[in-house]
Amino acid sequence: MSKVLVFGHQNPDTDAIGAAIAFANLQKELGVDAEAVALGKPSEETQYALDYFGLTAPRVVETIADETSDVMLVDHNEFQQSVSDIEKLNVLWVVDHHRVANFQTADPLYYRAEPVGCTSTIVLKLYKENNVAVPKDIAGIMLSAIVSDTLLFKSPTCTDEDVAAGKELAEIAAVDLDAYGLDMLKAGTNLADKTEAELLDLDAKSFPMGDKTVRVAQVNTVDIAEVFARQEALKAAMIAENAEKGYDLFLLLVTNILDSDSELLIAGEPREKVIDAFNIQLTDDRASLPGVVSRKKQVVPQLTAAFEG
Amino acid sequence: MSKVLVFGHQNPDTDAIGAAIAFANLQKELGVDAEAVALGKPSEETQYALDYFGLTAPRVVETIADETSDVMLVDHNEFQQSVSDIEKLNVLWVVDHHRVANFQTADPLYYRAEPVGCTSTIVLKLYKENNVAVPKDIAGIMLSAIVSDTLLFKSPTCTDEDVAAGKELAEIAAVDLDAYGLDMLKAGTNLADKTEAELLDLDAKSFPMGDKTVRVAQVNTVDIAEVFARQEALKAAMIAENAEKGYDLFLLLVTNILDSDSELLIAGEPREKVIDAFNIQLTDDRASLPGVVSRKKQVVPQLTAAFEG
Repeated sequence: MSKVLVFGHQNPDTDAIGAAIAFANLQKELGVDAEAVALGKPSEETQYALDYFGLTAPRVVETIADETSDVMLVDHNEFQQSVSDIEKLNVLWVVDHHRVANFQTADPLYYRAEPVGCTSTIVLKLYKENNVAVPKDIAGIMLSAIVSDTLLFKSPTCTDEDVAAGKELAEIAAVDLDAYGLDMLKAGTNLADKTEAELLDLDAKSFPMGDKTVRVAQVNTVDIAEVFARQEALKAAMIAENAEKGYDLFLLLVTNILDSDSELLIAGEPREKVIDAFNIQLTDDRASLPGVVSRKKQVVPQLTAAFEG
Repeated sequence: MSKVLVFGHQNPDTDAIGAAIAFANLQKELGVDAEAVALGKPSEETQYALDYFGLTAPRVVETIADETSDVMLVDHNEFQQSVSDIEKLNVLWVVDHHRVANFQTADPLYYRAEPVGCTSTIVLKLYKENNVAVPKDIAGIMLSAIVSDTLLFKSPTCTDEDVAAGKELAEIAAVDLDAYGLDMLKAGTNLADKTEAELLDLDAKSFPMGDKTVRVAQVNTVDIAEVFARQEALKAAMIAENAEKGYDLFLLLVTNILDSDSELLIAGEPREKVIDAFNIQLTDDRASLPGVVSRKKQVVPQLTAAFEG
C-alpha cells in the first residue's frame, strides 16, 4: 500500500482535526504509512487544544491525487465536504458519525459509522478493538473533539458513550474535564476581530437538498447580541457568498454555548422551506431557535424533510 | 422504537438470508423488536442449509413501509438492490462487505462495512463485541453463508478473517467444514430442471454504470458445458430481460465451483466495455475468464473502470 492520507472535512472543526490525528496514529501503530492532513487551518478553539497538548497542526492540503491515491476519511463522507479531487481517490476507510450521502466507492472498504456525538468517540473504540494504547497528547485532542462536538456534553447529539469516552480520555490526558472543556470552548468564541466572511467560514458545510445547495454555518459564542450587532454586515456577506459560490440558501446559526440556544439568520431562497422546517416566523430574516445547538440533529434533518415534503 | 425488519438484497443468496437471520437474532438479544425477512425465496443452496440446521426461511416481503418504517440492511446498501420502497424507510443499520454506492440517509446511522469475503464474518464480530453467544443453528447458517460467498475459501474475496470465522462457526455448529461445505455448494448446482429465466435470476444484481444499467448474473455449477448446452436459449432470455427490465447490458457468469473458473456470456450494449474490462475477445458473445469467481472483486470494479475510462 502506498502512503495514506487521513483527513476530516473542509472548514475543519476540532473533531475533523482531532479524529484525523488520532486515527492516523492508530493506523501507524497498525503498520500503515499514514499521515494526518487537514483541508484547512485549525480554528482558534482547535489551536488552543493543539497547543495545550503540545501537538502540531496537520499540514493543509488543497488536492491529494498528486501525492497519493489512498485516503481515509474521518468525520465526513459527503464528497462536497471533502477534498476537491476526492473522486480521483481510493477511499480505504471512513470513520464518521453523520448521515451517509453523496458518497460512493468502486471497491469494498472499511466503513464505521455510529450515531454518536463525536467521531473521536468511535476512534477510541477502534483503539480498544485493536489493543492499541492512546498516547497522552492524542487522548487530549480526542477529548477536545468530544467537548467541541457535544458542547461539553450538552448537545442532544451527545450519547452516554461520548460522556464515558470523554471521562476516560480526560484521565489519560490528565486534565480536569469541565474546567479544561469550558476554557477550550471559550477560546473559540473570540469573534470580535474576525471579518464577517471569516465568521461565516468558521464552521460551515454545504448540503444538496432537492435541486438546491444549502449552506449551513454555525458560530459559537457566549454573547449572541454581540454577534447580531453585525447583523446587516453578516447578511450582506451571506448574500455575497451565495452569489459567489452558487449557494441557493444560506443559514447562519449563532449558538450560545452557555445557554444552549441559537439564533438563526438566513439569506437566499427558498425561505419558506426554513419556515416549514422549524415552524417559525422570520423577522428581518431572523428567528430564535430555543434549545437548538446541533446542526446535524436539529437543523439538517428538518431542512431535508422540508425540501422533500 | 417500532418493529425493525432486517433483510439482505434482492435475489437473496445464502449470505443475504443467513446474515439477516443472524443479525436479527443479535438485535433481538440486544432488546430490539427485530425480524429477519427476505426479498425473495431461498435458492436451493440456501434451502439446503436452512433445512440442515433446522431453520425456517424468512418471510418474503415485497414492500415494507406498510408495516414499519425502521429497517436494517445486511449484505447490500445500493438502493436498486434493496426493497422497492427503500426510499420511504429509515435505515438504522447497515452491515455489509460491498462498495458503497447509490445509498443515502437523512440521519446518522450505524454502518459497518469491511472488505472481507462475507457479511456473516462481520456479524460474528458484532456478536463478540456485544458478548452475545451464537446459537448452534445460527452458527450453521452463518457458516453456510461464508462457504457460499467464498466458494469454500477459494474466492479471491476470501480473507484470513473469513477462514477463521468459518472454522469457529463450524465448531459451534458441530459440522465437518469441508464435507458440509461441498455438499451445500453442490446442492445449489442442480440447474437441469430450471428454466433459462430462473437461471438468470438465481443470483443477479443490477449496477448503474455511466448512464447505463448493467445486470450481472452468476450461476454456480460443477459442469460448465452442461449450462452452455443451453447457450442460445440463455442468450434469448437475456435479450428478453434487457427489453423487459430496461437493462442495457447483461452479463452471465457461469462459474465452476470445483475449478474456480468462469465462462462469460453477454447480451446488449456497450459490448466494447466488456472487451475493455477483461481484455478478452468475444466469440458468439462468449469468452473464458480463467480464475474469475467473484463478481464483486473480479467483475464489477473492472467493468466500472471500463465505463469510467
